[in-house]
Amino acid sequence: MSASSELSTPGGKLRLYVEAALGEDLRIAPGGDQAHYLLHVMRAREGDRISLFNGRDGDWLARIAEISKRGCTLECERLSAGQKEEADLWLVFAPVKKTPADYLAQKATELGVRALLPVITRRTIVARVNLERMRANAVEAAEQSGRLSVPEVREPQSFEKLLAAWPQERRLLFCDEGGDAAPIAAALRDSPGGPWAVVTGPEGGFDPAERTALRAMACVTPVSLGERILRADTAALAALAIWQAVKASSL
Amino acid sequence: MSASSELSTPGGKLRLYVEAALGEDLRIAPGGDQAHYLLHVMRAREGDRISLFNGRDGDWLARIAEISKRGCTLECERLSAGQKEEADLWLVFAPVKKTPADYLAQKATELGVRALLPVITRRTIVARVNLERMRANAVEAAEQSGRLSVPEVREPQSFEKLLAAWPQERRLLFCDEGGDAAPIAAALRDSPGGPWAVVTGPEGGFDPAERTALRAMACVTPVSLGERILRADTAALAALAIWQAVKASSL
Repeated sequence: MSASSELSTPGGKLRLYVEAALGEDLRIAPGGDQAHYLLHVMRAREGDRISLFNGRDGDWLARIAEISKRGCTLECERLSAGQKEEADLWLVFAPVKKTPADYLAQKATELGVRALLPVITRRTIVARVNLERMRANAVEAAEQSGRLSVPEVREPQSFEKLLAAWPQERRLLFCDEGGDAAPIAAALRDSPGGPWAVVTGPEGGFDPAERTALRAMACVTPVSLGERILRADTAALAALAIWQAVKASSL
Repeated sequence: MSASSELSTPGGKLRLYVEAALGEDLRIAPGGDQAHYLLHVMRAREGDRISLFNGRDGDWLARIAEISKRGCTLECERLSAGQKEEADLWLVFAPVKKTPADYLAQKATELGVRALLPVITRRTIVARVNLERMRANAVEAAEQSGRLSVPEVREPQSFEKLLAAWPQERRLLFCDEGGDAAPIAAALRDSPGGPWAVVTGPEGGFDPAERTALRAMACVTPVSLGERILRADTAALAALAIWQAVKASSL
């Protein structure tokens, strides 16, 4: 008989995202995939402890209260961290091929975005977006990064429609390879706080008409990421990391 | 008969890294893989133009002067951009499993590092490093990002030995999840210029003894990337992007 323990992975303690409400003594029955992962991959036993979060109720230490043939039941024991929001940053991006899209969803989640907004631009080559896969990547990255929320993954929409309905109070950080944009760190330091979104184009960049439309918007801050040509996903990650470093840490 | 043209890829114009010297009227015979790529993947014809760089002689527009059964010959026509160095930034990293390692080499190259230094730390899980593959990734990323140089890929060495022989005039930006490090943007703004290296640990972080050794060095700037737990490769890319934005653009 081995003692019960707090389960962990090489990256840190084991955390699971659930939809159900979390609170003292509340019991949760994890879904089939999560139960399989807990019992057969992580070889959890009754009494073992993991962390649970649902994006609303904070981080809860939970105990595996019961294991049955069909799955298991978790019981919340105590709140280990109160609910906290990430800084108000979205990522608007033209989807890229499968592996980079997996990376982008994972890394944007680690880098703290609140929402992922895939858009179809004139030059977007990947028209089909696997939202379920993107969401699964976001959930996994949220679990591993210690976040208390999973970013929202929006339905893909045309870039034109997105701009037409854009909430003007949310600033758009536009990674513009056009040449005359200000360096990103200086541009961010001189710009207002509040909600923001990073916008990156598809491979090959935005169409000239799209670029003109973006640059005409009062809420857009065009920035340069330097002289090198970055891939679309690298540009997105660099801009998110720099925004978090310059803006979020000064909030 | 179709006119000769400047060859391009979805990411931009076609560029190849070569070892040979480049200069007016000089002729270069690309290696087997490059010739195959040019002739059979890109379907190049005599007279087509591409860009060549070798890390020393700038960016040259070259013409496919001759195609034979065994390959082709390129002839330099004119210098399109003078040689330029990237900012003096290295990446010291504990290798990660294959796909993230490919990404890391590609993206660190796009983000402008001069050298990639794989190190074996006490907690490094991946002990074998495929240097040839890492170098191939760096070459490809340099070609696509418009860089005029390919980062040097050093032989793996033990982290302990690396620190013991560290050139003290090169500052080390240490992504320290230990808790009390200053936020990265502020720490970088308050720190000296000159040569730098970003240092990131393996999954699970540095061993306490390694962390203590690092923090005891006068040339180390420990920094925090925020409250979220980033994967090793995400932390490396974020730190490189932020360094370039804060330090390189102010040089």
